[in-house]
Amino acid sequence: MWGGRFAKGPSAIMREINASIPFDKALWRQDIAASKAHVAMLAAQGIVSQADAAEIARGLDAVAAEYETNGVPENWDLEDIHMTTESRLAELIGAAAGRLHTARSRNDQVATDFRLWVRETIDQVDAGLAALQHALVTRADEHAGSVMPGFTHLQTAQPVTLGHHLMAYYEMVRRDRSRFADARARLNECPLGSAALAGTGFAIDRRATCDALGFDRPTANSLDAVSDRDFALDYLQAAAQCSLHLSRLAEEMILWASQPFGFIRLPDSLSTGSSIMPQKKNPDAAELVRGHAGRIVGCLTSLMVTMKGLPLAYSKDMQDDKPPVFEAAGLLALSIAAMTGMVADSRFDTARMRAAAELGYATATDLADWLVREADIPFREAHHITGAAVKLAEQRGVALDQLSLADLQAIDGRIGEGVFAALSVDASVAARASYGGTAPDQVRQRVAEARAALGMEE
Amino acid sequence: MWGGRFAKGPSAIMREINASIPFDKALWRQDIAASKAHVAMLAAQGIVSQADAAEIARGLDAVAAEYETNGVPENWDLEDIHMTTESRLAELIGAAAGRLHTARSRNDQVATDFRLWVRETIDQVDAGLAALQHALVTRADEHAGSVMPGFTHLQTAQPVTLGHHLMAYYEMVRRDRSRFADARARLNECPLGSAALAGTGFAIDRRATCDALGFDRPTANSLDAVSDRDFALDYLQAAAQCSLHLSRLAEEMILWASQPFGFIRLPDSLSTGSSIMPQKKNPDAAELVRGHAGRIVGCLTSLMVTMKGLPLAYSKDMQDDKPPVFEAAGLLALSIAAMTGMVADSRFDTARMRAAAELGYATATDLADWLVREADIPFREAHHITGAAVKLAEQRGVALDQLSLADLQAIDGRIGEGVFAALSVDASVAARASYGGTAPDQVRQRVAEARAALGMEE
Amino acid sequence: MWGGRFAKGPSAIMREINASIPFDKALWRQDIAASKAHVAMLAAQGIVSQADAAEIARGLDAVAAEYETNGVPENWDLEDIHMTTESRLAELIGAAAGRLHTARSRNDQVATDFRLWVRETIDQVDAGLAALQHALVTRADEHAGSVMPGFTHLQTAQPVTLGHHLMAYYEMVRRDRSRFADARARLNECPLGSAALAGTGFAIDRRATCDALGFDRPTANSLDAVSDRDFALDYLQAAAQCSLHLSRLAEEMILWASQPFGFIRLPDSLSTGSSIMPQKKNPDAAELVRGHAGRIVGCLTSLMVTMKGLPLAYSKDMQDDKPPVFEAAGLLALSIAAMTGMVADSRFDTARMRAAAELGYATATDLADWLVREADIPFREAHHITGAAVKLAEQRGVALDQLSLADLQAIDGRIGEGVFAALSVDASVAARASYGGTAPDQVRQRVAEARAALGMEE
Amino acid sequence: MWGGRFAKGPSAIMREINASIPFDKALWRQDIAASKAHVAMLAAQGIVSQADAAEIARGLDAVAAEYETNGVPENWDLEDIHMTTESRLAELIGAAAGRLHTARSRNDQVATDFRLWVRETIDQVDAGLAALQHALVTRADEHAGSVMPGFTHLQTAQPVTLGHHLMAYYEMVRRDRSRFADARARLNECPLGSAALAGTGFAIDRRATCDALGFDRPTANSLDAVSDRDFALDYLQAAAQCSLHLSRLAEEMILWASQPFGFIRLPDSLSTGSSIMPQKKNPDAAELVRGHAGRIVGCLTSLMVTMKGLPLAYSKDMQDDKPPVFEAAGLLALSIAAMTGMVADSRFDTARMRAAAELGYATATDLADWLVREADIPFREAHHITGAAVKLAEQRGVALDQLSLADLQAIDGRIGEGVFAALSVDASVAARASYGGTAPDQVRQRVAEARAALGMEE
Repeated sequence: MWGGRFAKGPSAIMREINASIPFDKALWRQDIAASKAHVAMLAAQGIVSQADAAEIARGLDAVAAEYETNGVPENWDLEDIHMTTESRLAELIGAAAGRLHTARSRNDQVATDFRLWVRETIDQVDAGLAALQHALVTRADEHAGSVMPGFTHLQTAQPVTLGHHLMAYYEMVRRDRSRFADARARLNECPLGSAALAGTGFAIDRRATCDALGFDRPTANSLDAVSDRDFALDYLQAAAQCSLHLSRLAEEMILWASQPFGFIRLPDSLSTGSSIMPQKKNPDAAELVRGHAGRIVGCLTSLMVTMKGLPLAYSKDMQDDKPPVFEAAGLLALSIAAMTGMVADSRFDTARMRAAAELGYATATDLADWLVREADIPFREAHHITGAAVKLAEQRGVALDQLSLADLQAIDGRIGEGVFAALSVDASVAARASYGGTAPDQVRQRVAEARAALGMEE
Repeated sequence: MWGGRFAKGPSAIMREINASIPFDKALWRQDIAASKAHVAMLAAQGIVSQADAAEIARGLDAVAAEYETNGVPENWDLEDIHMTTESRLAELIGAAAGRLHTARSRNDQVATDFRLWVRETIDQVDAGLAALQHALVTRADEHAGSVMPGFTHLQTAQPVTLGHHLMAYYEMVRRDRSRFADARARLNECPLGSAALAGTGFAIDRRATCDALGFDRPTANSLDAVSDRDFALDYLQAAAQCSLHLSRLAEEMILWASQPFGFIRLPDSLSTGSSIMPQKKNPDAAELVRGHAGRIVGCLTSLMVTMKGLPLAYSKDMQDDKPPVFEAAGLLALSIAAMTGMVADSRFDTARMRAAAELGYATATDLADWLVREADIPFREAHHITGAAVKLAEQRGVALDQLSLADLQAIDGRIGEGVFAALSVDASVAARASYGGTAPDQVRQRVAEARAALGMEE
Repeated sequence: MWGGRFAKGPSAIMREINASIPFDKALWRQDIAASKAHVAMLAAQGIVSQADAAEIARGLDAVAAEYETNGVPENWDLEDIHMTTESRLAELIGAAAGRLHTARSRNDQVATDFRLWVRETIDQVDAGLAALQHALVTRADEHAGSVMPGFTHLQTAQPVTLGHHLMAYYEMVRRDRSRFADARARLNECPLGSAALAGTGFAIDRRATCDALGFDRPTANSLDAVSDRDFALDYLQAAAQCSLHLSRLAEEMILWASQPFGFIRLPDSLSTGSSIMPQKKNPDAAELVRGHAGRIVGCLTSLMVTMKGLPLAYSKDMQDDKPPVFEAAGLLALSIAAMTGMVADSRFDTARMRAAAELGYATATDLADWLVREADIPFREAHHITGAAVKLAEQRGVALDQLSLADLQAIDGRIGEGVFAALSVDASVAARASYGGTAPDQVRQRVAEARAALGMEE
Repeated sequence: MWGGRFAKGPSAIMREINASIPFDKALWRQDIAASKAHVAMLAAQGIVSQADAAEIARGLDAVAAEYETNGVPENWDLEDIHMTTESRLAELIGAAAGRLHTARSRNDQVATDFRLWVRETIDQVDAGLAALQHALVTRADEHAGSVMPGFTHLQTAQPVTLGHHLMAYYEMVRRDRSRFADARARLNECPLGSAALAGTGFAIDRRATCDALGFDRPTANSLDAVSDRDFALDYLQAAAQCSLHLSRLAEEMILWASQPFGFIRLPDSLSTGSSIMPQKKNPDAAELVRGHAGRIVGCLTSLMVTMKGLPLAYSKDMQDDKPPVFEAAGLLALSIAAMTGMVADSRFDTARMRAAAELGYATATDLADWLVREADIPFREAHHITGAAVKLAEQRGVALDQLSLADLQAIDGRIGEGVFAALSVDASVAARASYGGTAPDQVRQRVAEARAALGMEE
C-alpha cells in the first residue's frame, strides 16, 4: 500500500502500534457516505467516468451491506477503515476501485469522516439532554412548592423548594445544549478536497461534496483542514462541562440517598445491592456518573496534550484523537440516560426534606431581612442582631421561632410580634419572589417557560 | 463580620487559607461598578433612601479613587474585595454603608464581579487575536507566492506557499475568536439579585441592574446563579484551545529558526542570547509561548477538578476559581502579543525555503497525478509507478526531475515528455488551485476575503 | 548580558514574557548557597584565586544580607535571580564578580537551585504530614471504641469505630510520606558542573560541590542534568496524591458537619460565618482543602504538558516549571496545616454517630456471618436469607434486632436465639478482629504501632 | 445476586453502566489465583472443610482452563469477573461454591486482584525498559566519539557526542525504573481479608494469603484497604513520566529524520509510507509514541479526578479505576517496544551530524573558556569578547576558526595562536571531560558503568 519503495514490511510492533482499524472502524458509515459523495462529484466533474463511478458506488453499497451484517473485519495490515474499505472494494469491483482515491488523501478523508461522526454524536447528545430537561421540568413542576433545605457549604442556609433546585439543573443543561450547538456550528465545514495537505490539481467541486454531506461550507485552507482537531476538542470540552454538571447532580443524589439525609429513594431499576451486605441499596448509577466525569475530563486532557506543539500539517499523533472522543461519547451518553432515569423515577421524601429545612435556623436571614424592612435597620446591624438570636436559640436548643418575643426584644427592642410570620419555612420561600428566586410562583413561571421552550404539551 | 456567634476568631491558618483578597482584589473595578448599579436600583425601588444611596455612591467613588492611587489594601481579616471595600466605605460614610448589602450576598456579588471581569478579558483577547490575524494576513499577502516545503509527519510532502501556511493559522485564530464570542454570549446573564442562594424578599428590579451592567438578561435560577462557574470554564477552554494553536505556531518558529532548517530569522526584539554561549540567538519568546500552553491547560484542569462533584449551592471550593483564570488570562495575553510580534517582524529566508522544497521528492504526487490525468491510470497504480521512480532517483542520488525520460519510461511506458512540466515546485503549487488549495491565486483570494473580514484597508 | 551581538534590546513584551525574576526570586537562598559552594570549589581547584574567591564569598554574603532585609529587587532587565544576584555582586565587589560564572551556566545553576528548593520543601511537607499523623493517631486512640456507621457507596454498611476510620487516613499519609521520601532520594543528585549542556573543560571537582550542598552524588550525564525536571514532577505527583487524600478527609468533614449528619462540630478557629445568614458556621477550611486538590492536580498537569515532546537539552519552556511547583507547595502546606487543626480540634458527636450506626440495618452482615458460622450455611445462601430478613424489617419499619425469633425462624428455621448477640453494633465491631479490622483491640494495636513509628511518648 | 430485597431488576441502562465485565475480565488470572489462596487459607483455618476447599480449588482450575481456551464470557447480568467466575464455579461444583465468598467481599477481592495485575504490569514494564536501556547503551558505545551538534533552545549550542546524547536517555530510563520499583514496593501489601470495609469476624489468617500471593505484608487498615487506589495512581504517574521521556526521544527522532536535519534514517520496519505521496517515509512509530504520551497523561488525569473527594470506604466511582490503567499499560508497552526498535535499528548519518556541529559557531564557548583559562580574563568579559568575534564571523559569513588571528586580535589583543586548537569540534568535545561531560572518554566510562549495571556481557 505504501508504494514499491520499502525493502521490508513493518515489524510486528509497527503493525500493532500503527493500526487504527480496531477503533476507527466505528467510522465506517461516515467513510462510505463520504466516499460516495466524493465519487459522485468526480463523475460530475468528468474526473472519473460515469461508468466507473456507478461501479464504485454500487461496490461501496455492497461493502456497507457486508459491514452491516458481519461487522468490519480487523486486518492490521490494512491499517485503517479507509484502506479496509478500499481493499474490499477492489476485491469486489476490480481495478476501477483504484479511481476512488483520485483527488483526495487519507488526511482529508479521515478529517471528513470524523467530523461527520462527531456531528452525529452531538445530535444524539442533544436529544439525550432534551430528555433530561424534560424529566427535570416534569419533576420540578410536581415539586414547585415542596420545601427543602437550601445549602451553601453543605450547611443549611435558607429554605428553598425542590422544584427550584431541580430547575437549577435545567439551566445547566440549557447551557450544555448551547455549548454543543456552538461546537456543531463551528465544526460544520467540509475538509474533503483538501487532499494530503495542499489541495489538488484536479478540477474538483468542493461545494458539491460539502452540500452532499450536509456541511455549511468547505474549509478555506487545506493545510489547516488536515491539521485541525478543534472540532474534537470542542466536543470534548462540551462533554467535560456536561459531565461536571452531571457529577454535581450525582453527588446530590448520593447524599440525598444516604441514611442521614434520607431525602430520596432511588429507583430499584437504577440501584444495586451488595454481595456481602444484604441490606444495601447502592446508588451505583449516580456514583458511576460521578466517576465518569473523571474519565471524560481525562479524555479531554488526553487530546489537548496530544495536540500541543504539533507542527503543520498532519502528524500521526493525531491518530490518537479518536479513542478519547469515542470513549467520552459512550460514557456521556450512558451518564445522561442514567441521570434522566434517576430524575424521572426517584421518589422524594418531601416530609423529611421539609423537616430538615425546619432545623438549622434556616430562616435566620428572614429575621434579618425583617429587621431591615420593618425596622429600617441597616443590613449589617440586622445581621448582628440575628446572630445574637441564633446564639441564644442554640444555647436553649430550640428553633428560632420558639424563642419568645421577650427573648427577642431583650436582644433588640425593635423586634415586634410580626416577626414570627416571617420565620416559617413556607413564609420564607414564598417571600423570595424576586425574579429567579425560590418562591413557588417564580418556580412555576420558570417551569412554564421551560415547557414552552422544550415544546412540552400543557 | 460573621455576627456575634463565634467564641474565638479564626486562627492564623484560617486567616491565610480563607483570605482571597490577595487575588480577588483584581476585581475591584467590577465590584464597585456592581455595587453602584445595585444601590441605584435599591434607591429606585425605594428600598434605600435616595439620600443614603447618593451617599453610598459618592463613598464608592471615593474608595475607587483611593484604589486607583494606592492600590487595594490587603487585610486578611477582611477576607475579600467585597468586605475590604464595604469596610472602607463604612469608615468613609458611616452607618449608611450598612445598607448597601441589602438584598444581595457575597455569593451573587462575586458571581457578578467575576463575570464582568471575564467579559472584559474576552474583549481584550479578541482585540489581541484580531491583531494577530492582521499580522498573519499581512505576511501571507507578502508571501502568497513564496514556495516552501509542506510537511506531513515533518517529512517533506508537497510544495506549498508560505502565505498558505500562514493563512492556516488565520483560520485557527478565526475559530478561536468565534469560541471566545460564544463564551461571551453565554456568560452575559446577570446573577445580581440571586442573593445567597434563594433570591430575596426585597422588591428588587433585576432587569435594572442587569441593564446597567451591560448584561443581556438576568439569570433565571438563583441556586444555579451562585453555583455556576461555566463562564469561567468556557473562558478557560477557549483559552486552552487558543494556546494550543499558539504552541503549534511556536513549535514551527522554533524549528524554522534552527540551523538545520534556517527558514526564519527571529526579530532581535523577541530573542535572547546565552549567558555562556555568545553565538546563541534563542527563540525564547516562542518557547515560552509553547510552555505557557502547558500552564493554561493546567489552569483549565484545575477548575474542572475543583468543580467536580460539588453539591449546590455555593461551596467555598469555588473560591479557587479565580487564580487559574487570572493566571491563564495573563499568560494568554502575553502569548498572543509575543506571537503577533514574531509573525510581524520575523524575516523569512525564502531562498532557503524554496531550496528545501526542491529536495525530498516533494513533487512525487504531481507525477502520480499526471499519470492519472494524462494517461488515465487509476490512482493506486499511478502511486506504485511513482514509488518506483522515487526509488530510482534515491538510488541515483538525484531529484525526480533529473531522471531522464528514458529512465521514467523504463518504469512505465505511458510516461511522456510533458511530465517534466509538472515536476517543478512552482508548477506544483500553481496546480493545486482547488478551493482552499495552496496555489498563489487561491491564497490571494483567501487573503482578500480575510482583509475584508478584518476591515483592513486595501 | 547577552554579549555584543544584538542590534536592539528586547521589546517590552519580550522583557515581560522573558523575566522569571518575579517568581524565581524565591530561589535566592539556594542560589547563593550554590554559588558559594561553586566558588569555593573553583578556588580549591585553582581555577580562581583564593583572594577572588574570598572576595566573591564575602560579596555573596552581603547580597544575601540585603535580600534578607529588603527582599529581592525585581528588575526585568536582569531576567532572573541568577543575573540579579551576579549583577549586584559586581556592583559590590567589582570585576572579580565576573569570575564566579566560570565553569557553570545558568542551565546547571537553576537546575541545582531548584532541586535544593524542592528538597527543602519536601522536608517541610514531611514534617507537616508527621504532625497530621500525630493528630490522627491521638484522636484515633481517644476514639478506638467509638462506634459510627461505616459507609460504602455512602450507604450505611457495617458499624466501624471512629478510631479505625481515622487510622485509615494515617495509612494514606504514611504512603504520602514514603512517596515524598522516594522523590527526595531520586532528586538528590547534583547537576552543578554540567554547565550549559556538555560539561566543562575546566578541571572542576563535582564531588566537592555535590558534598557541600548535601547531595548524594553528581548527576552522570550533563545533557540530562540540564534537561531533566523529573524531580519537579515527582514532587508534584506526590503532592497531587497527598492533596487527593486530604480532599477525601475534607469531604468527610464537610459531610459530617452538615445538619443531616451532625457527626462533628468544627473548631471555631477553622470555620467561618456568612455575610448574610447569621446562623451559618461554614467548614470553609475543609472546602478550600478540597478545592486546592483541583489546583494542585492542575499544577501537575501544567508541568507534564510543558515537558511533553521537548527535545534536549534545555529549552526555555522549562522556565514554566517553577510557578506550578511554587503554587502547589504553598497550597499543600496550608492544606496540611488546616487539616491537622481540623483533626486535632474538632469535637465528635459520638452519641449521634452511634445512633446513626444503629439505623440502616448495619449489622445485616453479622446475621449472614452468624448463619455461616453457626448453622454452616454457604455464604451465598446466608446472604439470601439475610436479605429476606432485612426486607421484612423494612416493611415493619423496625431494626433488625427488633424482629422476633419467630419472625426470623419463619424465614429460615436454622436461626437460633444466639443470633441476637451478634446484632448489636458493639458486638459487630468487636467481632471484626481480623488483622486490620475495626475491632477496638485491633485499632488500639495499630495505634500503638503508629505511636512507636512516630516516636510519640507513651 | 443482590439478595431477595429488590422488587425489579436493573434496567437496561443500569445493566450497561454497571457492568465492568467488559474490561475487568482482564483480571481473570489474578482473580482465580486470589480465590485459590483464599480458599486454601479458609480450609487451613477450619472455616471451610478440606473437602469443600479441594472441590472449590478443582473447580477454579476448571474455570481457568475454560477461560484460557474460550476467553471469559461477557454476561452483563453477572456484572464483573468475580461474579462471572463464581457463577460458573457454582454451575460446575454446585453448592460448595457458595462457601468461597466466606470472609471476603468483592471490595477486598478486586483490590487484591487489581494490585496483582498492576504488579505484574510493573514487572513487564521494567523488563521492557531494561531492553530499551540495553539498546541505548549499545548504540552509545558505538557512537561515543561521533560528534553532533548539542542544542539548547533547538539552537546549535556546543558540540556533543551522539553517545553522550543517547546516554541522557539511559539516565531518564534509570529514573523511570526506580520510580516503577518504588511503586511496586509501595503497592505490595495484601488487602485480602479486609472484607467489605471493616474486616471480618471469621478467624482468618491474613498472613497466609498475603504470603501465598507474594505480598510483603497485609494492609493494616481495612477501611483504607478497600478505598485506596494509590497503587494505581503510582503506576499511572510513573507511566506518565516514562511516556514524557519517550515523547522527548520521539520528538528528536522525528526532527532528526526530517530532511533539513537528516541525522537519522529510520528502520523500514518502523516507518510507513503515504497513500498519496509515494516518496514519503514517515516516522509514524515515533509520532504515535509522542501522541500516546497525551493519552497516558489523560489516563492519569482521569483517575485523579475520579478519586478526588470520595468519602470512605468503597464507592462505585472506583470501578472507573481500571480502564485508564489498562489503556495506559497497553500504550506504554507498545511505546517502549517501538522506541527500543527505533534506537536499535536506526542508521545515524554521522557525517551529516558532524557537518551540522561544525556550523553555527558551536565552539564559541570554547573561545570564551580559552580566554578565561589562558588569558585569565573574567568569564563575563570573555563572553563579551567572544560575542564580538561571532558577530564578525557572521558578517563575513565564515566559521569562527576561519577568522584570522589578526581579526581576533583586533577584537582583543590577548588572543593568541593557541586558540585555534580549541575551535575544532573534536577538540571541543574532548575538552569537556568533567564528570558527566560529553568527552568521549567520559561517555565510555558511563557506558561501562551502565553495562555493568545492566549485567551486559563485555
